[in-house]
Amino acid sequence: MEALRQPLKTMLPPVWILLITVYGLNAEGDGMEELATEKEAEESHRQDSVNLLTFILLLTLTILTIWLFKHRRVRFLHETGLAMIYGLLVGVILRYGIPATSYNHKTPPSCSLKEGPVSTLLLNVSGKFFEYTLKGEINSREIHNVEQNDMLRKVTFDPEVFFNILLPPIIFHAGYSLKKRHFFRNLGSIITYAFLGTAISCFVIGNLMYGVVKLMQMVGQLTDKFYYTDCLFFGAIISATDPVTVLAIFNELHADGDLYALLFGESVMNDAVAIVLSSSIVAYQPSGANTHMFDASAFFKSVGVFLGIFSGSFVMGAATGVVTALVTKFTKLHCFPLLETALFFLMSWSTFLLAEACGFTGVVAVLFCGITQAHYTYNNLSEESTKRTKQLFEVLHFLAENFIFSYMGLALFTFQNHIFSPIFIIGAFLSIFIGRAFNIYPLSFLLNLGRRHKIKGNFQHMMMFAGLRGAMAFALAIRDTATYARQMMFTTTLLIVFFTVWVFGGGTTPMLSWLHIRVGVDPDQDLQPSTDSFQVLQGDGPQAEGQSKTKQESAWLFRMWYTFDHNYLKPILTHSGPPLTSTLPSYCGPLASCLTSPQAYENHEQLRDHDSDLIHNDGNLTFMFGDTSITANGASGSGVDGAGGSGWSANGKRSGSTSEEALERELDSREQELLSRGTRLVFPIEDHV
Amino acid sequence: MEALRQPLKTMLPPVWILLITVYGLNAEGDGMEELATEKEAEESHRQDSVNLLTFILLLTLTILTIWLFKHRRVRFLHETGLAMIYGLLVGVILRYGIPATSYNHKTPPSCSLKEGPVSTLLLNVSGKFFEYTLKGEINSREIHNVEQNDMLRKVTFDPEVFFNILLPPIIFHAGYSLKKRHFFRNLGSIITYAFLGTAISCFVIGNLMYGVVKLMQMVGQLTDKFYYTDCLFFGAIISATDPVTVLAIFNELHADGDLYALLFGESVMNDAVAIVLSSSIVAYQPSGANTHMFDASAFFKSVGVFLGIFSGSFVMGAATGVVTALVTKFTKLHCFPLLETALFFLMSWSTFLLAEACGFTGVVAVLFCGITQAHYTYNNLSEESTKRTKQLFEVLHFLAENFIFSYMGLALFTFQNHIFSPIFIIGAFLSIFIGRAFNIYPLSFLLNLGRRHKIKGNFQHMMMFAGLRGAMAFALAIRDTATYARQMMFTTTLLIVFFTVWVFGGGTTPMLSWLHIRVGVDPDQDLQPSTDSFQVLQGDGPQAEGQSKTKQESAWLFRMWYTFDHNYLKPILTHSGPPLTSTLPSYCGPLASCLTSPQAYENHEQLRDHDSDLIHNDGNLTFMFGDTSITANGASGSGVDGAGGSGWSANGKRSGSTSEEALERELDSREQELLSRGTRLVFPIEDHV
Repeated sequence: MEALRQPLKTMLPPVWILLITVYGLNAEGDGMEELATEKEAEESHRQDSVNLLTFILLLTLTILTIWLFKHRRVRFLHETGLAMIYGLLVGVILRYGIPATSYNHKTPPSCSLKEGPVSTLLLNVSGKFFEYTLKGEINSREIHNVEQNDMLRKVTFDPEVFFNILLPPIIFHAGYSLKKRHFFRNLGSIITYAFLGTAISCFVIGNLMYGVVKLMQMVGQLTDKFYYTDCLFFGAIISATDPVTVLAIFNELHADGDLYALLFGESVMNDAVAIVLSSSIVAYQPSGANTHMFDASAFFKSVGVFLGIFSGSFVMGAATGVVTALVTKFTKLHCFPLLETALFFLMSWSTFLLAEACGFTGVVAVLFCGITQAHYTYNNLSEESTKRTKQLFEVLHFLAENFIFSYMGLALFTFQNHIFSPIFIIGAFLSIFIGRAFNIYPLSFLLNLGRRHKIKGNFQHMMMFAGLRGAMAFALAIRDTATYARQMMFTTTLLIVFFTVWVFGGGTTPMLSWLHIRVGVDPDQDLQPSTDSFQVLQGDGPQAEGQSKTKQESAWLFRMWYTFDHNYLKPILTHSGPPLTSTLPSYCGPLASCLTSPQAYENHEQLRDHDSDLIHNDGNLTFMFGDTSITANGASGSGVDGAGGSGWSANGKRSGSTSEEALERELDSREQELLSRGTRLVFPIEDHV
Repeated sequence: MEALRQPLKTMLPPVWILLITVYGLNAEGDGMEELATEKEAEESHRQDSVNLLTFILLLTLTILTIWLFKHRRVRFLHETGLAMIYGLLVGVILRYGIPATSYNHKTPPSCSLKEGPVSTLLLNVSGKFFEYTLKGEINSREIHNVEQNDMLRKVTFDPEVFFNILLPPIIFHAGYSLKKRHFFRNLGSIITYAFLGTAISCFVIGNLMYGVVKLMQMVGQLTDKFYYTDCLFFGAIISATDPVTVLAIFNELHADGDLYALLFGESVMNDAVAIVLSSSIVAYQPSGANTHMFDASAFFKSVGVFLGIFSGSFVMGAATGVVTALVTKFTKLHCFPLLETALFFLMSWSTFLLAEACGFTGVVAVLFCGITQAHYTYNNLSEESTKRTKQLFEVLHFLAENFIFSYMGLALFTFQNHIFSPIFIIGAFLSIFIGRAFNIYPLSFLLNLGRRHKIKGNFQHMMMFAGLRGAMAFALAIRDTATYARQMMFTTTLLIVFFTVWVFGGGTTPMLSWLHIRVGVDPDQDLQPSTDSFQVLQGDGPQAEGQSKTKQESAWLFRMWYTFDHNYLKPILTHSGPPLTSTLPSYCGPLASCLTSPQAYENHEQLRDHDSDLIHNDGNLTFMFGDTSITANGASGSGVDGAGGSGWSANGKRSGSTSEEALERELDSREQELLSRGTRLVFPIEDHV
């Protein structure tokens, strides 16, 4: 992964410099040259301000236009698409509208050194020493270009800005705002699409692109090296989907919750997979002379890198989340929402730094931190802080996302090393289409073998259609544009993002109605068992049995986890769940009562008293009814559903439904809790049924 | 001002580098040297993460301890004082606990050039070119130190970080959270203390310090140059008071609102004055040989610079605020709080950039932008956005402030060019005490000649006591530590901040009770006319007349402004105030009705209908009663109070009170509106009485 951090010859970090460094030079000196340098630094600072201002005005303009569009209910163009258009316009103006100033057209002085490049260099100018820092290697053919086109270079960012500043809030927000009910219900499928699907997509695209590259070589369109690993790398970065446009419309139209969860979950997870995959491909460096042939040991090393980075980042993210949950549980910090919010923000940010400091991937860690925070810490926060944290990250996410997209528009005209290769671009468009198809359809078929709620054909087509590319693909592509191959990839990625966001994003609403996907679903009401599951449950034939068995097997691990989470993690990390004193073995008594929150007992007692009331009042009546009718149907009750929910009903209460349904109910009740926001008391309904 | 941007030889921006630039080097190269550089860059990135993580954990620890202190109602140590202590501890550990790694002990290679220093330098290493950027001039005696003590240099920031990242949110928040009622009631005094007082303080301290410097020269304690302008510069930076600790306790104990407003207003405004003053002093560069003698033309140039920068920054800030108010008024953006908050954030940030781009001072512009936003835009925002923006800036302010204070603690041990001069330090402590006394007591005496509500003796003592120094003094001092004089100033400033925050901050509660300053004042109830004003109003002797005349004169300009603001600016920029159709001349009819918000008519109508109801229900009953009793007292009603409030009662309604009282009522009702947060309708009570 570190290998990705390469010098971008043409990319400078001047705009952000304003935020951190403005070097003036020795204002008290009398010499002419120092005054000149001071003036130059001052001018540069002013220029930086103007550039950053340009971006801010661009975003302001975007916001106002978004408002206009939302106001008039225009849905064919999403805010990100709009941001790109404005970015394009400004890019055109910068490129063609502003004459290059003459004083910049000079080659900087150079000096020779026998040793290798060092990070710090001293310059001796007639006895005075000046300190210089290494910016990166520069291609010899570009030396005379260094100071040229200063304006264009000014508005280009260091690509690490995207990774270290703009992506983390976007990814964290994604994790933090997961709609847990639907997400956990579809976790197996999401993980399958994200891991297996992204890997398939990466390899399909990589191989197809290798064919395209071979074709280009034959036709003589390729002027520089383009290896197989480059193709695979392209496959990895372009496999990161980002259906932000589609999801925004889903949200607005209240489209089917499961489809939303599948798409959102997949896109969130596959970002993480794509990052780690691309680092692993870069880490694939066969030893010896045959540097671009297949090497088994290098391949396994790459797989090891993948697993190591992924699991390490996962552990980092989860650990910080757990620590935050513990801190917020065992302090009465919720009396001071400001402190709580600040702590939450700092802890979440520290995940990123911790992961980076340990050599893992900060962005991936931040994702899992967000999920953990939403699952545990969120329950411990004061009502005020839940709002504050949500809103804080919402604003950061919004600004960062629109910034990236408007920068993309700008980059099309201001990036100076574009390589537009028609064959490569057409090939890439075809490849991502085929790659997506190889991801969605076969995996959906396999998943449907094990799923009770099938992923229907129209859902599959919608997922196929929603394979937009966005911020992550761009950030991965711009991170390294040092070689010919990478420059061509960057250009192509940019075009793919434009095309998919505008065309597929704009076509979402027609597509939804064309595919007959139901919209206007009340998020609280769509938990009732669909007719599908009824049919499965009522059918007692061999097919149904086989299906339930598959389901049972596939869900086994998940149910284990759920039981563990509900019985131990929830009570330890939050104020909800059953008291640990009732779930832990008796010899852990003192520890258990120490860890259990007083609220947990309260919930428990309350539940015992108002048992039937709660069950009939919690809004899950439909579901309960469905459940009862299933039980009335004969052996199907806990037989077909398999799990029998006995694992976690430690108190030996009646358990009429399966743990999976209990899970759904729990998730449901939590979300209702989130929605109502008024009461902090959690009714542990799942403890009873 | 730009002259302040000097290279800080020992200050590097490595920690923030993580946020913006992580340069790895050519990962695909095969050469050993590139691999080594790559490894170095990777190591540096990791180190950066660790350092930033250190700060974040420091802040986390601070937050947890603050909670503990708040929980146990400990008041002798404020969070900022705590942050400094933690910073000190970490500084000690970094300084003495970590052995310097050996590989860093080498002098970097140097190369010679005949031309002056340039911003970009190319390095030719056996045919390969590397790009280097100028970091700054370096003292020849420190060349061998450049790579030494890497760990200590790592945790030092570029001083511009403070000015461009950390101060703006702090200052904006100060402006945005001004308690307008008390602020405007004491505006004249606040401006007097801030402008005249800071100037007095600066010159008193500057001259006393010049004496101290002369003494040091005589004793032989001074080893390098220390000019008169340096002394004045020190006077300017150390005149920026920051009673954050005191104000926090005031807030908690609900101390007197007027005293709070005086202290808070003074500290906010004098920060702005101190920045501009210090830049003006730097701009004072006498021409010719006598570079350190008094030069009238250079002096007037400095005054011009002061006025230019200050008014320019003011106009920038106010203009952006006005534009934001117009945008939020004339769009229905308040239906989308996220967009509204994002726009608000971007516009406020753009003030900073705009001012910097135009060569003014961003921080000062941001202050006035904050005040304008609070005065106008805040009224147009949706209920949700008012909360969001408040909370967003509250969190940013909190993090930035504690970061600065913990950094101060750290800097005491990690800054490498400290010059501890006992004479200078003792002299400085005495000078700031005397300077503060020359600011507060004479000005209070003068102000009391014109004030109806006197600034009593105990208030004056409290203001004297609350002359703490904090973030601004530190940021100004660290901005330039290139010369011997500046290094000595920096060390002294640091010690002054420590001492005042810990000792004066910790002594606030005892001091309040010792000075018999009333606490536990209900912010909504302390508007009743105090016995003071009653006595003045009842006394009809020559003294009372003279006083009322002085007051009248001094308040004339302010009342003009208030009338203009209420009749024209408020209706144009917000939804409140009287309709423009009733305040503008009739020939402006079409324009007036175009600019007036429909809500203004509604308010107006409603008011007409429920006239007496409103007056008796708006919580100002005490005030109304006081007013009536004054009127019943005979000629004193509008006679003594002078203004007669006819200027703005354009509709010819009964006007029983003065415009000043109406202003107070208006500000009061606005704050009640802020407090209730439930209704957005503004009752324009001031329109009637």
